[in-house]
Amino acid sequence: MMRGKFITFEGGEGAGKSTQVRRLIAALDKRGIEALATREPGGAPSAEEIRSLLVSGPPDRWRPLSEALLLNAARNEHLERLIRPALEEGRWVISDRFADSTTAYQGYAQKLGTDVTAALEALVVGDTKPDLTIILDVPADRGLERAAVREGRNPEGETRYERFSMRFHETLRQAFLEIAKADPQRCVVIDAVQPEADVSAQIWHAVTARFAEVAT
Amino acid sequence: MMRGKFITFEGGEGAGKSTQVRRLIAALDKRGIEALATREPGGAPSAEEIRSLLVSGPPDRWRPLSEALLLNAARNEHLERLIRPALEEGRWVISDRFADSTTAYQGYAQKLGTDVTAALEALVVGDTKPDLTIILDVPADRGLERAAVREGRNPEGETRYERFSMRFHETLRQAFLEIAKADPQRCVVIDAVQPEADVSAQIWHAVTARFAEVAT
Repeated sequence: MMRGKFITFEGGEGAGKSTQVRRLIAALDKRGIEALATREPGGAPSAEEIRSLLVSGPPDRWRPLSEALLLNAARNEHLERLIRPALEEGRWVISDRFADSTTAYQGYAQKLGTDVTAALEALVVGDTKPDLTIILDVPADRGLERAAVREGRNPEGETRYERFSMRFHETLRQAFLEIAKADPQRCVVIDAVQPEADVSAQIWHAVTARFAEVAT
Repeated sequence: MMRGKFITFEGGEGAGKSTQVRRLIAALDKRGIEALATREPGGAPSAEEIRSLLVSGPPDRWRPLSEALLLNAARNEHLERLIRPALEEGRWVISDRFADSTTAYQGYAQKLGTDVTAALEALVVGDTKPDLTIILDVPADRGLERAAVREGRNPEGETRYERFSMRFHETLRQAFLEIAKADPQRCVVIDAVQPEADVSAQIWHAVTARFAEVAT
């Protein structure tokens, strides 16, 4: 049995990650590839319990180091209980956010330092690095507008990260671009201001260019 | 203003830590020393939210690495929001459990490895090491009997750690003795099978021998 592929989507608030995860799953399904959609923080029942501590409440609810530790605890549960078993069974795993979000949010934007986030990533992620990371790039103000519309449609109260300052969100965008620049083999940056279908087409191009299983 | 002293109590289940913390606080109060009683996991409102994820449910609720990360997240909140500010204001802090519990429970007894717990401790605790650690030593079966009596009197459902195997609790006891052996300057082991008042007297002796503020 060949190990499945692990693809992550990254980007700020309102970049369209969850929509694009759904579209990619559907495109893979047409090629007969079983792929799981998952997300962080969360993705396993125990990890979702930690998520509930993170996504609501005021921005200063946690110190940045505490937050990085909570996110890595949730990530370890996600890896051990869902991602690694699925990949070993040959399934593909598509995650809406993964370790790069902790690097960008806590390491850069909350100023914890990327040495700390890298040390935690080495401890928790180990060899289970994504085979491909799609970074959806959108200006901070534009993304927050979209996120606000989403909350209006489907208010779950998961707005803690949106309530960080505009400066925070601008730093975040630059952080994801830095991460992509530092690891161009793994990361593809896509302009997410484009219409949804155009973004999907570029994602599909990146996937087919990289993986023989879906090469056209 | 002189920095306060930081004293921790460690040991397995039912060793009598919370009783001895109360007795030490009372003895310090008689000498005019203001000391805060606190505990882990918890000790600050945000840390207590993490505690609730740890102290109930089945023993395999968390992977050992996830558990060590959760405990360190709670510890960082405890340090930042309570311990460090109190010590800086000159107050003494007496904690029922601290980092040695993670070394013993996760590092040794859950077999995560003390290299991992030491790396997390360095990241979170840094220079805020206890000035004195009292390790209350009691045979595992005796401690669990006492813990069961305590639960009967005051059932809060916080029994997750008690439900680990007897072998786990025996490893735990040895782990605390190892920790004491490795750091004899900081740690004092006290036989906690003795009557409460005798245990208190030995603790008070250790405190007065160490700190000029309470020297007899």
